[in-house]
Amino acid sequence: MGMKKRTGPLARMMAKQAEERGDLYAPACPSRGVLDHVTSRWGVLVLIALMDGTRRFSELRRRVAGVSEKMLSQTLQALEQDGFVLREVHPVIPPHVDYSLTPLGEEVATRVEALAEWIEDSMPRIMEARARHVPRKA
Amino acid sequence: MGMKKRTGPLARMMAKQAEERGDLYAPACPSRGVLDHVTSRWGVLVLIALMDGTRRFSELRRRVAGVSEKMLSQTLQALEQDGFVLREVHPVIPPHVDYSLTPLGEEVATRVEALAEWIEDSMPRIMEARARHVPRKA
Repeated sequence: MGMKKRTGPLARMMAKQAEERGDLYAPACPSRGVLDHVTSRWGVLVLIALMDGTRRFSELRRRVAGVSEKMLSQTLQALEQDGFVLREVHPVIPPHVDYSLTPLGEEVATRVEALAEWIEDSMPRIMEARARHVPRKA
Repeated sequence: MGMKKRTGPLARMMAKQAEERGDLYAPACPSRGVLDHVTSRWGVLVLIALMDGTRRFSELRRRVAGVSEKMLSQTLQALEQDGFVLREVHPVIPPHVDYSLTPLGEEVATRVEALAEWIEDSMPRIMEARARHVPRKA
């Protein structure tokens, strides 16, 4: 989940290239890290939850059932680093922290949501396919 | 990656419910497994590679640079179970095995590709956001 720091010459070259366009088929391209962040189970659910508007940490934690505090925090941090999520700390007592989508985050969330909705809608057909599936012979 | 077999009463109830519609926000819903299969790094790249047409195992292995034989095989198996990929064994000597998308697989691959293309196209903006990002204070 966390962003691995790649610093070798190949990684630097790919990072340079990604400033033009990413290539998910290139193992060292940083686009693979972005894909991981937005398609991780929690990444998907957080992005979609934030499409409804600004949320506090505790609200997200409730909405994304099953996520631990640590995983939610790591997920949000990765999405912040990529520029998808804005984190705002309000200096009140007790302090509170708001999370929202940036314009870039809204663009990616729209695509992620389209995929997620297709999966939810298609579960009847997928469950049917699973029931029909004959496992390979070893 | 592999499909975890869930067999408790809650899992059975959720599987029953998924025959109507999936709910990714419900921890025990089998749609979460489907999401994992199609958004795993190799799942994404295999689905998109198969959009160009039928491929043999060795062709997929070359196209999806960096994948091990074992991971590719597990990825394909999960996609077969969900009804997205068709595996055909031709009884010739030496035997050969073809992989292609089913109609259901084409539908999901289209959504996955839309997301992947957005990421590739948006890498310049994402790299810029990463460069601007100020890590949180511990």
